[in-house]
Amino acid sequence: MSIRIGILGYGNLGRGVECAIEANPDMELAAVFTRRDPSAVRIATAGVPVVHVDDATAWEDKIDVMILCGGSATDLPVQGPQYAKLFNIVDSFDTHACIPEHYAEVDKAAKESGHIGIISVGWDPGLFSLARVYANAILPNGKDYTFWGRGVSQGHSDAIRRIKGVKDARQYTVPVPAAIEAVRAGKNPELTTRQKHTRECFVVLEDGADAAYVEKEIKTMPNYFADYDTTVTFISEEELQQNHKGLPHGGSVIRTGSTGHNQENQHVIEFKLDLDSNPEFTTSVLVAYARAAYRLAKEGQLGCKTVLDIAPAYLCAQSGEELRAHLL
Amino acid sequence: MSIRIGILGYGNLGRGVECAIEANPDMELAAVFTRRDPSAVRIATAGVPVVHVDDATAWEDKIDVMILCGGSATDLPVQGPQYAKLFNIVDSFDTHACIPEHYAEVDKAAKESGHIGIISVGWDPGLFSLARVYANAILPNGKDYTFWGRGVSQGHSDAIRRIKGVKDARQYTVPVPAAIEAVRAGKNPELTTRQKHTRECFVVLEDGADAAYVEKEIKTMPNYFADYDTTVTFISEEELQQNHKGLPHGGSVIRTGSTGHNQENQHVIEFKLDLDSNPEFTTSVLVAYARAAYRLAKEGQLGCKTVLDIAPAYLCAQSGEELRAHLL
Repeated sequence: MSIRIGILGYGNLGRGVECAIEANPDMELAAVFTRRDPSAVRIATAGVPVVHVDDATAWEDKIDVMILCGGSATDLPVQGPQYAKLFNIVDSFDTHACIPEHYAEVDKAAKESGHIGIISVGWDPGLFSLARVYANAILPNGKDYTFWGRGVSQGHSDAIRRIKGVKDARQYTVPVPAAIEAVRAGKNPELTTRQKHTRECFVVLEDGADAAYVEKEIKTMPNYFADYDTTVTFISEEELQQNHKGLPHGGSVIRTGSTGHNQENQHVIEFKLDLDSNPEFTTSVLVAYARAAYRLAKEGQLGCKTVLDIAPAYLCAQSGEELRAHLL
Repeated sequence: MSIRIGILGYGNLGRGVECAIEANPDMELAAVFTRRDPSAVRIATAGVPVVHVDDATAWEDKIDVMILCGGSATDLPVQGPQYAKLFNIVDSFDTHACIPEHYAEVDKAAKESGHIGIISVGWDPGLFSLARVYANAILPNGKDYTFWGRGVSQGHSDAIRRIKGVKDARQYTVPVPAAIEAVRAGKNPELTTRQKHTRECFVVLEDGADAAYVEKEIKTMPNYFADYDTTVTFISEEELQQNHKGLPHGGSVIRTGSTGHNQENQHVIEFKLDLDSNPEFTTSVLVAYARAAYRLAKEGQLGCKTVLDIAPAYLCAQSGEELRAHLL
């Protein structure tokens, strides 16, 4: 029998989950849940119902795992505990500083109702967290580095769009090549924010907007741009559509560390991603952890988990025997 | 209370485990077990007993985890099941084709005696297996590549040393740069053995040996060298001691895969190691999994496990709360 997946929220992530389910023959999309008028939501998979979130309760026995595809700012802190009362859930909560609180809320709801909730799944937090934890466990004497990009930061793109006179924008986060090479070479550099990443902004102005004003507003924006070397390039709407439509991303987690009685041997562990589509890759991770949620629930486990709490074999469709024979 | 570790076998791996225990304050070396005369074995850690393997039974209650530091060819197939009857064990069994059989033997012994046995720990099998399994779970439509090196292959170095006229030798396995770059670029090349790695041999001849004969014997050796572009460089014993004393290694596991309703988006996942000391890194992994073995045993789990069966949080000295707050 297939694992029956529900999607809650049909934006970039919801569409990505739908795609990823197609790629996994042991899963099926049971229903898509939306806060909009269901009749107005057209999904890619034929024959699958679109249901209003208010009717989710009726699906308690028809969904094995509900994947929450809302945003971390306002959706997931509410939806996590709410839907963990009804379903096994997986979410991509990515506000690092608030993970302990979100964990506690989901844990309480999931334990009370007898479900599993896997939070903060994706690539950072998610696969990058795994890379950090494995590398820290193996090389206790060392130093962690995380580089993001080259990729589109949706938060930074949105911040530019809020400036008066901006019609549209894409912001790329770009790791500084010299910094990443120094880290890979085991030089253990101390790097400031500015030395690690640059920010490239491609901006479409509204008619009659003041380009100099927009550029200054971007480059001096606290937290987002002020601490970085930022370039601003004004382009036409056509060029943005043609060359900046995708949502590529990626990055590297690197830990350098030493071993030996005198710390005389250096080692570098790197985990690197190069992604054409940030949402489709993120949702591929979500779907693999949905398989884990299903299996953990079958075993009678409950409460909140993160990627750190789940053995890798739970993610794969193959049996333990197959994994040991072919992938170990 | 510290985790009390026993080391069985005091070669390169045993010495590496001893080093790694120093780097982990929650562990202590309880004893080193040897098949040699214990009085002839001098270890680096002061005040720790060296014990003959025949007396290991007396240590059943004084060792939390025994790390087996023997070789995969003849030692571990015997020692794994034998010592899993007395202790929780960790080994680095690396004969990929024989893992299912070794797993079954250790599982039986460990279950009968109520212990945990974690087998095939290290970097390949080990961390590279983890990289393969995570990447396969996330990108079911894709292709795996593993490149080894640049690093010393001890098996290949030994094979050269067995040729008549060879006094000493070091063999480096070297990935072909063009191949690895094509894979990273997402070109999904089909690569033959020869296209993936070259083999560099540094050979010290015995006085009066026939260099042409040695070179031909190396380059035509089946399995080891015949399928590769192999270079042979004759050097002096001094040069070998000066420039080829270390045991560096490393490599990359790369999975390229696609997502999207029409497989239109490409992704590259790479896990890369660059290691000054193969044995010290391998044993750092063994020691992290010894911590996991200790914790799993405390929970009452038993039987054989591999790295695929163990959640990453078990490897780290930090608590779940600390990991969620700082490394997730």
